[in-house]
Amino acid sequence: MIKVYTSTVLDSPAHVVWSIVRDFNALPKWTPFVADSRIEQNLPSDRIGCVRNFRTNDGGIIREQLLALSDYDFQCVYSILESPMGVENYIATLKLTPVTDGDKTFAEWSAEFDPPPGREQELADHVGQAVFQAAFTHLKQRLR
Amino acid sequence: MIKVYTSTVLDSPAHVVWSIVRDFNALPKWTPFVADSRIEQNLPSDRIGCVRNFRTNDGGIIREQLLALSDYDFQCVYSILESPMGVENYIATLKLTPVTDGDKTFAEWSAEFDPPPGREQELADHVGQAVFQAAFTHLKQRLR
Amino acid sequence: MIKVYTSTVLDSPAHVVWSIVRDFNALPKWTPFVADSRIEQNLPSDRIGCVRNFRTNDGGIIREQLLALSDYDFQCVYSILESPMGVENYIATLKLTPVTDGDKTFAEWSAEFDPPPGREQELADHVGQAVFQAAFTHLKQRLR
Amino acid sequence: MIKVYTSTVLDSPAHVVWSIVRDFNALPKWTPFVADSRIEQNLPSDRIGCVRNFRTNDGGIIREQLLALSDYDFQCVYSILESPMGVENYIATLKLTPVTDGDKTFAEWSAEFDPPPGREQELADHVGQAVFQAAFTHLKQRLR
Repeated sequence: MIKVYTSTVLDSPAHVVWSIVRDFNALPKWTPFVADSRIEQNLPSDRIGCVRNFRTNDGGIIREQLLALSDYDFQCVYSILESPMGVENYIATLKLTPVTDGDKTFAEWSAEFDPPPGREQELADHVGQAVFQAAFTHLKQRLR
Repeated sequence: MIKVYTSTVLDSPAHVVWSIVRDFNALPKWTPFVADSRIEQNLPSDRIGCVRNFRTNDGGIIREQLLALSDYDFQCVYSILESPMGVENYIATLKLTPVTDGDKTFAEWSAEFDPPPGREQELADHVGQAVFQAAFTHLKQRLR
Repeated sequence: MIKVYTSTVLDSPAHVVWSIVRDFNALPKWTPFVADSRIEQNLPSDRIGCVRNFRTNDGGIIREQLLALSDYDFQCVYSILESPMGVENYIATLKLTPVTDGDKTFAEWSAEFDPPPGREQELADHVGQAVFQAAFTHLKQRLR
Repeated sequence: MIKVYTSTVLDSPAHVVWSIVRDFNALPKWTPFVADSRIEQNLPSDRIGCVRNFRTNDGGIIREQLLALSDYDFQCVYSILESPMGVENYIATLKLTPVTDGDKTFAEWSAEFDPPPGREQELADHVGQAVFQAAFTHLKQRLR
């Protein structure tokens, strides 16, 4: 198993950032790499257990299941059911914490997963940089 | 603000206990003091933000909102919107953890709230004993 | 009981900030309000249970006990044994988390305590602003 | 990296169990497999950063460093510096939580580490059963 951890500071209050990222179906709105997304079986996107089925810009299909959602401490946890990455036991957590000094947001995105043998570093870099950090950078621009 | 903490050990695996207590509308099934319960607006009981509206055996009406639910670490967080207790800022967390030695469950139920002046001890005892511990005791019998 | 929470972002890596704030006897080095400090009984300042005895610029004497220290996740917990504030059951936690985007530090300082009746807001403001935020602001300048 | 998690319930209050396991040099007193132990450089065993150097019954030498200790929530974190197991990046946490129903203790012992290739299952079983569970079982007998 490997662990990936990416964190940043966003120039908006935590409740504003949460209003954007809370929607499990909203990846096309705040990340640069998702072309379209739907929740399977037409479930509401804040129902625990729902599955988002989205297509990345390069045509890959990813299915992820919502395991936890908290309006109390602004976090969600989800697993990957299916993806082109070939990872197993993938669990990710996205969490927001208020920065009281300046009314900003500390955002953390972490994941644990089992990569295919020999692809540990490649996939750690991909998830941490090309996915999590790229999404944070895109979100920063949107929040301006 | 006062804090209440009640914990117990249940003689069943955590996933079995979770299958009972996960349902935010199931208080009549596993507590001794709830006569009936419904989720307002017919929402599913695992949708974050839903409100359970239940009647206790002595006729009191309580409305509680689901703030967080986690199938990942078996916990839920909720607030009281309306109750006969007269408390404010009430937030409670129910959490299950596996006991690997014997395949049992460690269950924790905690709450924070502002009581009316002068009723601190009375309400701490009521919530900790007459609500949380009484529900645990009833649940133990049901799991036998 | 009331809760105070103050957080900020510091422009240095977490291990650098930790090397300064880890020392339970170092308040005169990184806060603006402590004139001098010593650890009672000449104990090392990273021994759990040790007591720091310090004098603020206005002459007040405060004694605080180290309850927890973690080089693993960069945090410490301490209680107030004696202070001019007249608070009871005071427990504070200082915690650092790395901001990977820019190699900075997210710093959180929180406290819970029972204030004398009628002084809730005054003491919440004092601890959150005149102590925690003032120390963070001073530390920022030192780190430049 | 693999994760090991072992938990049990002990028939004594948490502060009593903590008074035994808090001492980082006390493994010979409450585990069945440690012949003798000392803290290097004669440091106190509750000083963060101290190293315990102990010999198991089969003659192996293990050196472990105390990374965190908390009298606040009854937990300690340590790493392995040297051992016959051949593991890397080993970090373990021992934590006690009160069981209010019966005044008992919920004890959790977990570890993360990188095993040598091909020995994942063997070492997961060894740490979880032959070390953690065996120590808990021995401690239970001592507490009777």
